[in-house]
Amino acid sequence: MRKVVLGLGISLDGYIARPDGAVDFLFMPKDYSMGPFFATIDTMIMGRKTYDAALKMGGGGFGDPKMKSYVFSHSQPPGERGDVTFVNESPRPFLEKLRKRPGKNIWLMGGGELARDFLKDDIVDELYIGVVPVLIGEGLPLFPSGFPQREFTLLENKTFSKGMIALKYARTRKGKK
Amino acid sequence: MRKVVLGLGISLDGYIARPDGAVDFLFMPKDYSMGPFFATIDTMIMGRKTYDAALKMGGGGFGDPKMKSYVFSHSQPPGERGDVTFVNESPRPFLEKLRKRPGKNIWLMGGGELARDFLKDDIVDELYIGVVPVLIGEGLPLFPSGFPQREFTLLENKTFSKGMIALKYARTRKGKK
Repeated sequence: MRKVVLGLGISLDGYIARPDGAVDFLFMPKDYSMGPFFATIDTMIMGRKTYDAALKMGGGGFGDPKMKSYVFSHSQPPGERGDVTFVNESPRPFLEKLRKRPGKNIWLMGGGELARDFLKDDIVDELYIGVVPVLIGEGLPLFPSGFPQREFTLLENKTFSKGMIALKYARTRKGKK
Repeated sequence: MRKVVLGLGISLDGYIARPDGAVDFLFMPKDYSMGPFFATIDTMIMGRKTYDAALKMGGGGFGDPKMKSYVFSHSQPPGERGDVTFVNESPRPFLEKLRKRPGKNIWLMGGGELARDFLKDDIVDELYIGVVPVLIGEGLPLFPSGFPQREFTLLENKTFSKGMIALKYARTRKGKK
């Protein structure tokens, strides 16, 4: 079963970006690699604002023929444009179709508003969160309020250089699998 | 030098309590103990709302003769009442006086609004945070927005049973020790 993995770096106070979208506070420790994670995915899903921010920062990955990218948007017409496919649907039915096709895991790369929609629909299977040791005081939260309680199981907790910690959690769904 | 330690348990989405103040989602793992932490402190500081919530939940600790408790409040007259001392001052000048007296570390036990005041005044020296593996979706945040950026150094990252992790950070103040 293809899993939906919400994967992001955050500040210690839970922000994925500053109010203007800047992510200068995040860093990649020398002893850390996204390689093993990237090896498990072949699909990226993001919200429209995250897509716009990624384009502004120079994009990256959208032209990768091995990676399929979807952008959820209520304002853009659905369809393929500029190496991504726009989607204007609820997350759950879209993901049910996507998961029927063979493939690797699906990376939900943000932002917080789309993460909230996915958590509402309970289609987030794993969390993969890097926490950097800084309180930025204000910004765009990874988990904006407004979804029902969701229990998780800690799979991994690793400390990297400069105090970055990487946490992996799996959704605990009682009575299922 | 007596340190101010902001120490609290939070949900994975950063809440110290549900909107109504309930903390039923927090738990104490069998292999975890607050003992070593309590051995380092002799003073507790809390906001007035946290004090009221603690009283409602049955208090605890306020009558301990070895522990001095201060409650920051803008609405209550200052002075000693019911095993606690009410304070109506800015955190920094109050803490400067308190630190001149000999003693152990000072536990800032919440809530988020007082934590924000202390972070604004940059008098939080350490963070001691327990993170439980649940997203509760809404509640009272440990780090409400509205304070300047504050860098920290990770001192400790330990995993306990049922997926609770305990994180210890020290404030990184450039140019100062």
